[in-house]
Amino acid sequence: MPEFLELLPPVEALKILLDRLPTRIIVEEIETSSALGRVTANPIQSPHPLPSFARTTVDGYAVRAQDTFGASESLPAYLRIAGEVPMGSAPAFSLKPGSCALIHTGGMLPDYADAVVMLEYTQSVREGEVEILRAVGVAENVLELGEDVEKGQVIIPPGVRLRPAEIGGLMALGITHVGVARKPRVGILSSGDEVIPPDVELGPGQVRDINTYTLAALVEDLGAFPVSYGIIADQFEPMRIAAATALEACDVVVITAGSSASTRDLTAQVIDELGKPGVLVHGVNVRPGKPTILAICKEKAVIGLPGNPVSALVIASIFIKPVIDALLGLEQTRPQPSITARLTLNLSSQAGREDWIPVRLLAGEDGYQADPVFGKSNLIFTLVRADGLIRIPADATGLPAGQLVEVIFL
Amino acid sequence: MPEFLELLPPVEALKILLDRLPTRIIVEEIETSSALGRVTANPIQSPHPLPSFARTTVDGYAVRAQDTFGASESLPAYLRIAGEVPMGSAPAFSLKPGSCALIHTGGMLPDYADAVVMLEYTQSVREGEVEILRAVGVAENVLELGEDVEKGQVIIPPGVRLRPAEIGGLMALGITHVGVARKPRVGILSSGDEVIPPDVELGPGQVRDINTYTLAALVEDLGAFPVSYGIIADQFEPMRIAAATALEACDVVVITAGSSASTRDLTAQVIDELGKPGVLVHGVNVRPGKPTILAICKEKAVIGLPGNPVSALVIASIFIKPVIDALLGLEQTRPQPSITARLTLNLSSQAGREDWIPVRLLAGEDGYQADPVFGKSNLIFTLVRADGLIRIPADATGLPAGQLVEVIFL
Repeated sequence: MPEFLELLPPVEALKILLDRLPTRIIVEEIETSSALGRVTANPIQSPHPLPSFARTTVDGYAVRAQDTFGASESLPAYLRIAGEVPMGSAPAFSLKPGSCALIHTGGMLPDYADAVVMLEYTQSVREGEVEILRAVGVAENVLELGEDVEKGQVIIPPGVRLRPAEIGGLMALGITHVGVARKPRVGILSSGDEVIPPDVELGPGQVRDINTYTLAALVEDLGAFPVSYGIIADQFEPMRIAAATALEACDVVVITAGSSASTRDLTAQVIDELGKPGVLVHGVNVRPGKPTILAICKEKAVIGLPGNPVSALVIASIFIKPVIDALLGLEQTRPQPSITARLTLNLSSQAGREDWIPVRLLAGEDGYQADPVFGKSNLIFTLVRADGLIRIPADATGLPAGQLVEVIFL
Repeated sequence: MPEFLELLPPVEALKILLDRLPTRIIVEEIETSSALGRVTANPIQSPHPLPSFARTTVDGYAVRAQDTFGASESLPAYLRIAGEVPMGSAPAFSLKPGSCALIHTGGMLPDYADAVVMLEYTQSVREGEVEILRAVGVAENVLELGEDVEKGQVIIPPGVRLRPAEIGGLMALGITHVGVARKPRVGILSSGDEVIPPDVELGPGQVRDINTYTLAALVEDLGAFPVSYGIIADQFEPMRIAAATALEACDVVVITAGSSASTRDLTAQVIDELGKPGVLVHGVNVRPGKPTILAICKEKAVIGLPGNPVSALVIASIFIKPVIDALLGLEQTRPQPSITARLTLNLSSQAGREDWIPVRLLAGEDGYQADPVFGKSNLIFTLVRADGLIRIPADATGLPAGQLVEVIFL
């Protein structure tokens, strides 16, 4: 197996792939109300200031602040009521010195008003007049014009995944359509002569296709669009045709190899036929997932994954996620949330190799404990039983029990 | 404002709501391939053992382990090759003592074979015979029948949110349809005479509807189905009719009040008319979000949120998420991932009140720093600028700079 002579660390292998991956963001215009989780393709500017007028944040009386200076419970200021501000339209009057206006939270300040006195610091005296029991400063209890955003300000840069807050911010500015990166199409091919579709009765020696479905779910979760090409026979020509078809129609192609060494080599040969430059990395110093293949063919990423379902899913998280993020133009401005936990037992690993170990989280008295879930890497329920993965770095020969580890959620 | 005389802590308020919320899980049968993120409604049992036959995890020779005992490079065991195991079907032969079979990763062990010797520890000598250079123990390099799951075992309990791993596990067992909790329908009503739809030109004194869209996005994100009832006039009868219509069609109703105290009272009156027992909590000791209303009407949760968009979104995360989780039957077995960070400055708060502060995360030399984003709670871009929220507990009067805080992602 000459391809395994120089196993690259995962970070270096990924860098080789990403460095040569062309990332032209394809923009599509969609409704902002349907844009949750999508990634902005362009900087978005504010078409007008927000708020678009000075508003009160409390119920009370809009005033000219200087009319209240010195006012107190023992020495109130007396102001004439000029009117009541209607909700949702401009007051029909402006404030002359010595006057005020009844106003409700969210209401628009009349011209010349520059502050609001809360209702609880006022007192009615007689029809048309109010006692102000406390002084207010200029802009007190007021949202000023443009206090949230100014006109022309970039409110959302490109490469931002839209959350509920951003959807709300866009709507506040009347931006009901937004340019986002089109979801990359990820073609998924399964291979293996022993593999059958899940809805078919199992014969002796047969196993059901798992990878098509775990990978499609992962791709969907990562904000891309999975396209399944089914189960392909472990032979050069059928695989080449299926892979070429997928490459034509998709932005990324993922092939899960048959399990044996010979069919893994077949995957590499097929990928090399798909287009230049072809296979860039064949074999990564990681467990599980050593036989991983990373390639660029016709300017598209092609990834060969190990056939066994645990390796395929772990490796896909390491390599397919960054590829999809790159094609979405996602800027990694927000850190990845995780859980820190204490390892329950000693783990050994081989120096120079990065290991990913499934763990279950147990609530302990002193925070969470990370309890490794052992199982051969072919056993999908090893992952079902796990909450996440921990990484043993290549420069370690293991991790001691009690060590604090970061658990990446599956 | 008599309703605010006894402000409940958020945790107690939530408990009052959840204790009286009937949670009948409505089951729907869907395709497993579309079930990502859905929550299982019933325990799912394995219809057969997995693997369904003993398989090899390596390329090599299937053997009877005892035939290899004592074998070494200097003293190999010689075994007769009985045949090659085809992929995807049962071998047509069984292993007699002193014989072995060429087998590829994933292949089915012939009858009487109980271990596999890796190819690299074998050597061809002559046609039909192989040298075994290393002994193997029983079950070595073999996935045994039922090693992953046994027949009849509960593989996924009810209340589990399906991840890619579970989708794969179900497919491995041929479970192509799965019973999940129907997505709760959450009716969303916005009110406010100053509020207009986002696609309409702003007039003076008007603001665009934000809450309908932030809440719909949040509800979608939480795995429920948002139904918008639009912007309702701040008057009793129109609000009552719209709320009753929503209550009839949905499992949860969320009403964002107009901003002023009078319209907040209106929301409480409307909710109390919808059905028994009506309003359970009016006013929660939390900032932002004090005027929150929690109610049960006709056995459904009805939640009144403050009109201002920051309060509405923060409070929705605190109160709507647990309601949706309860209606999905979600068992909180997996901890919530988060980020721990150091506060950049002193924060003060009022003893007895729980405060939620938006923060931006800054990458520091010694981990992340949580930098509070200040802004009046009406400013939606305060949340756009934030990565998450931190909580100042009710029993604290603030948090000092440098304190480690848990950042809950928005």
